Amino acid sequence: MNRKEKIRGEMKFKKGKFPTGEKNSITDIKGVKVGHLTINRNIQKAPGKTGIIRTGLTAILPYPMAKEMRLFAASFVLRGKNEITGYEVIDDFCYLNSPLVITNSFNVGNAYNAILSYGFSLNRMEIWPPIIIAVNDSYLNDMRKSLLDEKEILNAFYKASSTKVEEGSVGIGLGLRAFGWKGGIGTSSRILFISHQQFSCGVLVASNYGNQKSLDKPKTESNSTRNGDGSLIIIVGVDIPLAPYQIKLITSSLVSSLSPVNILNNCLDSITCVMFSTANPMSMENEGPSIFEFELIDDSLLAEIISAGTEAIKEAIFNSLLKAAPVEGRLGRKIETIPENEFKKLLKEFGGVS
Amino acid sequence: MNRKEKIRGEMKFKKGKFPTGEKNSITDIKGVKVGHLTINRNIQKAPGKTGIIRTGLTAILPYPMAKEMRLFAASFVLRGKNEITGYEVIDDFCYLNSPLVITNSFNVGNAYNAILSYGFSLNRMEIWPPIIIAVNDSYLNDMRKSLLDEKEILNAFYKASSTKVEEGSVGIGLGLRAFGWKGGIGTSSRILFISHQQFSCGVLVASNYGNQKSLDKPKTESNSTRNGDGSLIIIVGVDIPLAPYQIKLITSSLVSSLSPVNILNNCLDSITCVMFSTANPMSMENEGPSIFEFELIDDSLLAEIISAGTEAIKEAIFNSLLKAAPVEGRLGRKIETIPENEFKKLLKEFGGVS
Amino acid sequence: MNRKEKIRGEMKFKKGKFPTGEKNSITDIKGVKVGHLTINRNIQKAPGKTGIIRTGLTAILPYPMAKEMRLFAASFVLRGKNEITGYEVIDDFCYLNSPLVITNSFNVGNAYNAILSYGFSLNRMEIWPPIIIAVNDSYLNDMRKSLLDEKEILNAFYKASSTKVEEGSVGIGLGLRAFGWKGGIGTSSRILFISHQQFSCGVLVASNYGNQKSLDKPKTESNSTRNGDGSLIIIVGVDIPLAPYQIKLITSSLVSSLSPVNILNNCLDSITCVMFSTANPMSMENEGPSIFEFELIDDSLLAEIISAGTEAIKEAIFNSLLKAAPVEGRLGRKIETIPENEFKKLLKEFGGVS
Amino acid sequence: MNRKEKIRGEMKFKKGKFPTGEKNSITDIKGVKVGHLTINRNIQKAPGKTGIIRTGLTAILPYPMAKEMRLFAASFVLRGKNEITGYEVIDDFCYLNSPLVITNSFNVGNAYNAILSYGFSLNRMEIWPPIIIAVNDSYLNDMRKSLLDEKEILNAFYKASSTKVEEGSVGIGLGLRAFGWKGGIGTSSRILFISHQQFSCGVLVASNYGNQKSLDKPKTESNSTRNGDGSLIIIVGVDIPLAPYQIKLITSSLVSSLSPVNILNNCLDSITCVMFSTANPMSMENEGPSIFEFELIDDSLLAEIISAGTEAIKEAIFNSLLKAAPVEGRLGRKIETIPENEFKKLLKEFGGVS
Repeated sequence: MNRKEKIRGEMKFKKGKFPTGEKNSITDIKGVKVGHLTINRNIQKAPGKTGIIRTGLTAILPYPMAKEMRLFAASFVLRGKNEITGYEVIDDFCYLNSPLVITNSFNVGNAYNAILSYGFSLNRMEIWPPIIIAVNDSYLNDMRKSLLDEKEILNAFYKASSTKVEEGSVGIGLGLRAFGWKGGIGTSSRILFISHQQFSCGVLVASNYGNQKSLDKPKTESNSTRNGDGSLIIIVGVDIPLAPYQIKLITSSLVSSLSPVNILNNCLDSITCVMFSTANPMSMENEGPSIFEFELIDDSLLAEIISAGTEAIKEAIFNSLLKAAPVEGRLGRKIETIPENEFKKLLKEFGGVS
Repeated sequence: MNRKEKIRGEMKFKKGKFPTGEKNSITDIKGVKVGHLTINRNIQKAPGKTGIIRTGLTAILPYPMAKEMRLFAASFVLRGKNEITGYEVIDDFCYLNSPLVITNSFNVGNAYNAILSYGFSLNRMEIWPPIIIAVNDSYLNDMRKSLLDEKEILNAFYKASSTKVEEGSVGIGLGLRAFGWKGGIGTSSRILFISHQQFSCGVLVASNYGNQKSLDKPKTESNSTRNGDGSLIIIVGVDIPLAPYQIKLITSSLVSSLSPVNILNNCLDSITCVMFSTANPMSMENEGPSIFEFELIDDSLLAEIISAGTEAIKEAIFNSLLKAAPVEGRLGRKIETIPENEFKKLLKEFGGVS
Repeated sequence: MNRKEKIRGEMKFKKGKFPTGEKNSITDIKGVKVGHLTINRNIQKAPGKTGIIRTGLTAILPYPMAKEMRLFAASFVLRGKNEITGYEVIDDFCYLNSPLVITNSFNVGNAYNAILSYGFSLNRMEIWPPIIIAVNDSYLNDMRKSLLDEKEILNAFYKASSTKVEEGSVGIGLGLRAFGWKGGIGTSSRILFISHQQFSCGVLVASNYGNQKSLDKPKTESNSTRNGDGSLIIIVGVDIPLAPYQIKLITSSLVSSLSPVNILNNCLDSITCVMFSTANPMSMENEGPSIFEFELIDDSLLAEIISAGTEAIKEAIFNSLLKAAPVEGRLGRKIETIPENEFKKLLKEFGGVS
Repeated sequence: MNRKEKIRGEMKFKKGKFPTGEKNSITDIKGVKVGHLTINRNIQKAPGKTGIIRTGLTAILPYPMAKEMRLFAASFVLRGKNEITGYEVIDDFCYLNSPLVITNSFNVGNAYNAILSYGFSLNRMEIWPPIIIAVNDSYLNDMRKSLLDEKEILNAFYKASSTKVEEGSVGIGLGLRAFGWKGGIGTSSRILFISHQQFSCGVLVASNYGNQKSLDKPKTESNSTRNGDGSLIIIVGVDIPLAPYQIKLITSSLVSSLSPVNILNNCLDSITCVMFSTANPMSMENEGPSIFEFELIDDSLLAEIISAGTEAIKEAIFNSLLKAAPVEGRLGRKIETIPENEFKKLLKEFGGVS
């Protein structure tokens, strides 16, 4: 019995309304793969100066990438202090055809190059625009180095898999912290029924928020992150037929279901949610018909998806904490895994969902 | 041969790319009706004081209103100084089930009441939210009176017809002026082919803009309208299968295709465009299936609709000028129909489309 | 000791970070007044048919309304199923010069007329656009009657006062319910310090949400409200110097700090937040200078305002429940005040803020 | 007398309302510098395969970049098919502290890296987010190579100058075409008076649009660009005190003042406008006060800026055509400078402003 299961047993998590998917992972959505690149190295910056590299990249491939294909997508950003490339295209044209990459701010450029190279290597006409979401891992990571090599990134795309996603201090998760403890990557999934059909909702998060101490206390080195540098990244995939405006409504609802203020005592961390549906894929391979048929569900059923998504996001955040290994980073900083009693406190604040 | 046809012949209008619909009217879209209420009265405000009422209301009924039904819709507003009720619902949920009413700012309340009463009279469960777009007709009209009676407004809904729309100084058009001449209601339609199927695009405008003199000249009484009080209202209907994000893209493109600055020398008049598609109607009458089937066209074909819509809007604006009868309003102000030579100048500035 | 204080004492509310203002009311913001119109009547609809009217209107006057003046304002709407008139003007031009009126959907028209009449009665050149936010009180109220008389509404404006706001089943609060119990009007305020200056943040809410039972259970008459018909209306006033984009950031942050999903098990109720700052007022009385001087605070200090605002909103929601009197409405429906044990459960779910 | 002046003389350009700035260049705004990197090379791709590189990069430095400083900024994108990094931060937080870089889609990654390196080299704490706007120059340029070297890009930043900007086939302009002729970089500026104070408005454009032939004609190789691949990039700088919402209003108004449809017969090219004001700079160097003073002008004066900006943009577009040298690119394609008679036609369609 692993630590997560043990805590779950002890805590008698309030049972959620929705069953988890088979892998309890975003890869429960058919066609979705995830790949991590983890860089855990000490490098020689200059004579006598060592660079402590605790970073990486996590890539979500939303569909079999060799296909010339688009999915409907939308995003919602609360207090957008993070880079998200390609945002304007998703906002206006509502489609996604690129991998979704989460990395640190200084690797955006190399990830951009790698996504384009990936498209060429697949002989795709169109992987555009690349979607890269940046987080700040400079507390543990010597961020002033763009160390992710294009070949390494491409390798993460090629090795991406549909098995259960590795969680915790892996990929971009290596250098992250949340609520003062080791954060990172978490995933989860839920099954729901709409009109007697079974659908899935999968979530992957990168938790890097809630680190700032109360604003009325003096700042010490250990909470020196500037206001607003924290962030929570949420990727949501479903196989439910949705129109883009419905995906947009769901993303804003999901971001608003997390009460960051309560939990964090830090009101300026940003939340970025990108969501796609694998239903209604649009093939770009042939000229095809000019008029496409698609499906969407009744608006009143969005509530069900929002409920399921909220459950999955909360569990994914918990998983990112429970699965995280301690990491020692730059300046001798060491971030521990959240202890059980602290986790229980957090769970209580979150309203005890699992 | 009426005046409009005469000028057209003389001017040898550049022939547009798209043929006009049968009625060259927004009512060429199947199911669309239009009703006007015109109030042209002098009333006794107080002993010795006469109120000069030159106002009205124009209602576009986008589908047979007895049906419990929704259409996909979207809107775009440039420099939004006008009221548009229900805007937020269209923006988030992308549907329209109410008549679209254009009236002056002080009749918004009565029009709101009338739309709700209309729904009750039809035994509709849902006509919500009412969509009312306000314009300022205070140059000619003694606006400080909310004179439109609920019964009169209801009557305009009941009498609404699918015949060719009456244009010029009618409905809300009675008190409007454009480019310093008599403006008002104009309509037009175009036929286009997508994937060998024939579709229609219909437009109705209320022109009330371009009245301000150059900003570097002293203001005189005759150009005393404050900056930003002018407006152009555009209603567009199509029978083409579109997703809401596509309707939104078309509305912003249409508003941006009119070069108000060039024409007007007045950069703060507002433009409001509301557009709906009668394809993909959603019946709300039965519980029905939870998953609906829809159609949409390929994004690359939006260009065709934007082209057709731009032609139709420009002709509708011209029609609003050419069909307008002179009106004498409050303070002895008289606004004339645009003379031919002035119209030719305007046409030249507009780029000569017909 | 009233009921609210009693429960507070027993519960040992977690003490919030910020002290309350003198009146613990939105009227702690200098210049702000609130007026209620409460309609609690049984009327004769037809021979043998009685209309049960449990409705009203609540008006927030953000500044001394006789002054020709504008305030900076912004709004954020989550899942916008409610009418909010004037939304587009606030969104583009960021100002507020009208009273903020909360009433039911069928009184929007009459409230619109009343705000315009109010402006005339004050000899104001400009009270435009009127801001009216609609809620659905049809569970208790026989809503198919627009009963609010323009004179009664005007009277509510004239009688509006800067004393502590009356809470609970008053004004538009009369017919509202929240979490299955009697909801209504609540208010609260907080004091905060920025750069050693003291500022205030005041809140008024109308709570009408969280009424739907779990979606996977059969609907019974008592939870027959359609998905999405519920709503929470939040008005926030501050005397802190803010730029409009900062007010917008705060409104989205506040809406996202309330975790409606957790609490409600109902993911489609809408939340509407309108916020204004009385700092940086812009006088429209004289032509004045063309260049105005303003102040704004550093973005990093927004967190403090968001924290204070969240505390105030939560307490205002609690107050709306604790102060509400039971109301018996149409179809013999009776909604009770929340019992103490139920309130304690709710408080726990909310994270225990006071 | 150069070609541009000659054509101007002959054409008797309608005199615009506003005088041009001293350099008639975006660098007329105090503190603004522009740097070009032009890559005009044939390279060996593989034995017997030559890569024809006709690309580059143009950087606008909006203020002296060694200063730790922010400017208010906003952007508006019509039909956003182009990448614009950092968009979401500008949209939410309204500031700019990075160079604005225009380059082709495949150099976004390297430009990103270069802007970050530039910040480090200046010992800046914060140059974030980098703003890079992508255009598609694949008609002439062998785009599948990310050839811009970080050092070369940095050099363009270091060499950026406040002299009159070089126009035409330079920087990112080398590979662009507009209306079927050689397009590229153009600049212009205008002087305006507000409240008796003199201000400047400067513009730089990259013209790469209007290339598609009429949609109802068969496509030939020479017009094979896909619908929507064209774009017009507009950078606007002013020294006028504006609030962010005012900058946003101006950008949407400017984009809407260009009637792309008329001119282009191609309704899906995108337009991206980014605008900043050097008034109200916010120093980030010291902790400083928590409350800043700033200035803004009355909304009614925005019309003047929109008029001046429209004049400047139109002249900048003309300049991008008139100053462009012919370029021969990949596949033996040669794009000529626009001939005088064709330019005159275009000018007529544009409404003859200069």
